[in-house]
Amino acid sequence: MIVSNTHTHVSNVPAKERAHSRTYSFVHGNHQANRARLLISCPDQPGIVAHVSQFLYEQGANIVHSNQYSTDPESGLFFMRVEFDIPDLDTHKNTLHNQFQPIAEKFAMDWKLSLANQRKRMAIFVSKEEHCLRELLWQWQNGDLYAEIPVIISNHPIAKKTVESLGVPFFHIPVTRDTKAEAERQQLKILEQYQVDFVVLARYMQILSSNFNQIYKNQIINIHHSFLPAFIGSNPYARAYERGVKLIGATAHYVTENLDEGPIIEQDVQRVTHQYDIEELKRIGAQIERTVLARAVSWHLEDRILIHQNKTIVFE
Amino acid sequence: MIVSNTHTHVSNVPAKERAHSRTYSFVHGNHQANRARLLISCPDQPGIVAHVSQFLYEQGANIVHSNQYSTDPESGLFFMRVEFDIPDLDTHKNTLHNQFQPIAEKFAMDWKLSLANQRKRMAIFVSKEEHCLRELLWQWQNGDLYAEIPVIISNHPIAKKTVESLGVPFFHIPVTRDTKAEAERQQLKILEQYQVDFVVLARYMQILSSNFNQIYKNQIINIHHSFLPAFIGSNPYARAYERGVKLIGATAHYVTENLDEGPIIEQDVQRVTHQYDIEELKRIGAQIERTVLARAVSWHLEDRILIHQNKTIVFE
Amino acid sequence: MIVSNTHTHVSNVPAKERAHSRTYSFVHGNHQANRARLLISCPDQPGIVAHVSQFLYEQGANIVHSNQYSTDPESGLFFMRVEFDIPDLDTHKNTLHNQFQPIAEKFAMDWKLSLANQRKRMAIFVSKEEHCLRELLWQWQNGDLYAEIPVIISNHPIAKKTVESLGVPFFHIPVTRDTKAEAERQQLKILEQYQVDFVVLARYMQILSSNFNQIYKNQIINIHHSFLPAFIGSNPYARAYERGVKLIGATAHYVTENLDEGPIIEQDVQRVTHQYDIEELKRIGAQIERTVLARAVSWHLEDRILIHQNKTIVFE
Amino acid sequence: MIVSNTHTHVSNVPAKERAHSRTYSFVHGNHQANRARLLISCPDQPGIVAHVSQFLYEQGANIVHSNQYSTDPESGLFFMRVEFDIPDLDTHKNTLHNQFQPIAEKFAMDWKLSLANQRKRMAIFVSKEEHCLRELLWQWQNGDLYAEIPVIISNHPIAKKTVESLGVPFFHIPVTRDTKAEAERQQLKILEQYQVDFVVLARYMQILSSNFNQIYKNQIINIHHSFLPAFIGSNPYARAYERGVKLIGATAHYVTENLDEGPIIEQDVQRVTHQYDIEELKRIGAQIERTVLARAVSWHLEDRILIHQNKTIVFE
Repeated sequence: MIVSNTHTHVSNVPAKERAHSRTYSFVHGNHQANRARLLISCPDQPGIVAHVSQFLYEQGANIVHSNQYSTDPESGLFFMRVEFDIPDLDTHKNTLHNQFQPIAEKFAMDWKLSLANQRKRMAIFVSKEEHCLRELLWQWQNGDLYAEIPVIISNHPIAKKTVESLGVPFFHIPVTRDTKAEAERQQLKILEQYQVDFVVLARYMQILSSNFNQIYKNQIINIHHSFLPAFIGSNPYARAYERGVKLIGATAHYVTENLDEGPIIEQDVQRVTHQYDIEELKRIGAQIERTVLARAVSWHLEDRILIHQNKTIVFE
Repeated sequence: MIVSNTHTHVSNVPAKERAHSRTYSFVHGNHQANRARLLISCPDQPGIVAHVSQFLYEQGANIVHSNQYSTDPESGLFFMRVEFDIPDLDTHKNTLHNQFQPIAEKFAMDWKLSLANQRKRMAIFVSKEEHCLRELLWQWQNGDLYAEIPVIISNHPIAKKTVESLGVPFFHIPVTRDTKAEAERQQLKILEQYQVDFVVLARYMQILSSNFNQIYKNQIINIHHSFLPAFIGSNPYARAYERGVKLIGATAHYVTENLDEGPIIEQDVQRVTHQYDIEELKRIGAQIERTVLARAVSWHLEDRILIHQNKTIVFE
Repeated sequence: MIVSNTHTHVSNVPAKERAHSRTYSFVHGNHQANRARLLISCPDQPGIVAHVSQFLYEQGANIVHSNQYSTDPESGLFFMRVEFDIPDLDTHKNTLHNQFQPIAEKFAMDWKLSLANQRKRMAIFVSKEEHCLRELLWQWQNGDLYAEIPVIISNHPIAKKTVESLGVPFFHIPVTRDTKAEAERQQLKILEQYQVDFVVLARYMQILSSNFNQIYKNQIINIHHSFLPAFIGSNPYARAYERGVKLIGATAHYVTENLDEGPIIEQDVQRVTHQYDIEELKRIGAQIERTVLARAVSWHLEDRILIHQNKTIVFE
Repeated sequence: MIVSNTHTHVSNVPAKERAHSRTYSFVHGNHQANRARLLISCPDQPGIVAHVSQFLYEQGANIVHSNQYSTDPESGLFFMRVEFDIPDLDTHKNTLHNQFQPIAEKFAMDWKLSLANQRKRMAIFVSKEEHCLRELLWQWQNGDLYAEIPVIISNHPIAKKTVESLGVPFFHIPVTRDTKAEAERQQLKILEQYQVDFVVLARYMQILSSNFNQIYKNQIINIHHSFLPAFIGSNPYARAYERGVKLIGATAHYVTENLDEGPIIEQDVQRVTHQYDIEELKRIGAQIERTVLARAVSWHLEDRILIHQNKTIVFE
């Protein structure tokens, strides 16, 4: 279960970055000062919705969106996401939190309260191919991804120019078999220093260690360049070409211990024919990859994803 | 607003038909004896969800699905669909209805309570082209459309064999400019006699009168063979060919006074190229038409559609 | 390489069937009396197209469609499909065949000349689920699949009524582990007796023997209910559900020795969400299966598919 | 008919630009030094393919791709695109041209010979919204669009920074009702000075004059933000919202006298629901627009598009 109480940051971000992030005006920003999201998962039983909605009503909240899902109404698990507006959210925040606690306990809830205007801090890892990185940066610049991007890390220097032209700090940390452990130590230190909430692997071609995955459990999103579970592992386009598939795809998923087997967030495909060679498959695939990854990241940012066992519940 | 109190039928259906409809076992049928759906629309204000869910909780209901939508949380309209299980629904039904009335009044709700195991009675109108009719009959036979089909009416005799082989009464009512009014009188009489709830125009190539539309207001679903609002009117495939579009489509919509301008329920498209002549567009289009219509009909049967002004809210 | 000289049948089809097949008027039938298709594969080198088109020109042919593909213009394999009209095709057929022989030899061609108005004889194998069978029969009835269907075989009696209502002979041949060899002997005897050109496995849930596959090499089309190579083997929908994929699919392929690993002809997918249980995945999947299979069969019937190694070249 | 003899430029491009364009290595560049494309349209009759392929064979060419289409083999128009490799293309070019002339005359061909390594010079016009511009620039930088971009013109200063960071000259030419004629004079002068072959309107929100369209006849590509012919004219997203469509789309087309009615090159759509407000439709639509426009531009660059009456033949 991923939901947990919301974490707040003491803001000691590098000044340069903070100044920068304020230069973009985000489309969603204005009217969301009083908007919050409540994410819940608990054993299903009658009365959950009644209690939650009664609570919100008493707090003066107006529900804007509400989604729920039960694996089985009789004895399954119940998942809920409520988006609501509440006057003077900033001053109410702690009260809201404390007063919900008894309901959470009554229903044995795993829950999280998240403020819409508090941007998540997203680090991006990238290797040589920039298409996914660029799509994220572009949508971010354009206000379509409501996040902070405090830092971008790469095992190659290629993306440096692209990244720094936007005023985002870029760290080049080469990784070889021998330096891998040390490289991860540096990466983790940077992530901590920049108070990163979650990490996006935007075609980062290194496998992270168990330890790294544990620290950012359910907080690392990867894009795999195939329609999983087809073509797990390396060189999926070459293998798609060999197999002669008529559609190629891409999969965004949370990273777990088992390579390419974490919970799938989003997938998409595109039609190809016998005429396409591996290079052309890669070129078409790159378009799918960047679209799929950007969609998954936006859902993560908007708290639309709950994880249950090895699957995601996405409340679109 | 379409929602209204549920209409119940005194069951005087022709015996043959009733016997017939019982011969199919519907996949959704078994576990739905205690399932109901509440459809609500009303001015948005805080407290609606709280009151509705509190009410259901007190009735001992377990919410299975719940969807809501507001055109504007501040001063808009609010739409809700709740699907729930409640023990001994049959005996509770009237109580449920009566006890909800005060809440409905408090919030000025337009509302409808619908029992999942009470199949809607659907008439199908068809002309010469059978592909949409067949898709509906097939999905119905297969248990994918949970409906009664008491009667099928056509202005041509072509579909007679297909229809009667399934034991469904078929009426051939020819329509010419001169006989149109009389033909509609016959049609309406048959619909009444067979206690039809709603009508599907499965490529029925006659325009119904204002009077007919009024009697079955928001209860007639048509399939138009284009991606509306492109190619309103006749011969859409020929016009799509002339225009050189790269996608052709189909649109299922509720019928209103204005031809092809009623609320859209569902649309889909398929890619075509310069190589396709009009006949091939028709052949491809036929596949889209039957898929789109069947999807729209299934949503109508499951009370997933609310109408607001000239648009639909579809709770999938 | 699949292409081979065209096989012609002495027509001793059961009278009933032949009478039947004439009762449908096929849309493509009329104008195709003089239409032929030439399928070629050979090592690529300059001059192939020049020689083939010069030959057709001299024969008085008018090229209607022409497609070609080369794995590598320098040293690869070349594939070509030419569709052409030629006056008095019936009387010219043998001449055409003989006079092309020297060109075929010059370029070491594997080739086949196929007459558009000579319908291929297709047997359908089915088990319990009828949706793919029905789609094929329906499109066939409607003239969209230009084939003869001399016989349908099943290991269950379920489809008997559907099949015989269309006047097509139906054979129920049960298969158990013990009777499998004998059952295949019967099946093969029937296929021979009805002069079947190719076999469609329309959700036939038995694995054919090596021997069977050899006899109808590249002439058996199967529909697998997943997006191959994901979920090879049994219960793909259950496994798709377990894995939490966001798209489900179906794959039509030629059958080879290795289960679900033959050359892919066509694939398609549809979006699903966490809300769909296994039954719903099956229901949605059934729609994809029948569409994908019907498309693959129509391409086979129109000689649009060449096989190269384990892949198909589809000239749409 | 658009095809015409190829136009060659005396190269007097501004030095800065030329230096710049050489800094990108294009993926398709290396192996295309000896590749040419022949585009033909003429009345259909037997022998065209035979003569063309015989000619290419005699010239020592190896055909790489060949596509053809006939509106009607009996008395229609014939369209052909042949892509071929020929040794020492540079030295052969004029000979090739001259020697093909007799064949072209024999069949009354409209034709064009185009060298794959000769990049077309593309100007981009843009207003305030940068998403289409950026997609084109990005794909161009990445080598996916094999073009020169000598100049970008806008009626707003917004895109200046984006454009100049890539070293491409940017001209801000404001347009008001009063200055429109003068503005067009300036635009045309710049296009001439930079030897522009064709113009892409990447969300350029001004209507070009008849005169402008005539000068760049069939050489102006526009992106319209709807699925044409639905929502011709202004504010298509607002109108799509009003109509309640379930798919929104975008259309790339050549510009003609009649607004939004020129030959359609490419279209695509994406599913939306009742939940999307106009702003969200715009955001989703922006993704479709940039994909559709980039695809249309790449086909234009690769000489894959022929225009016939008001329709395109796209040889993919």
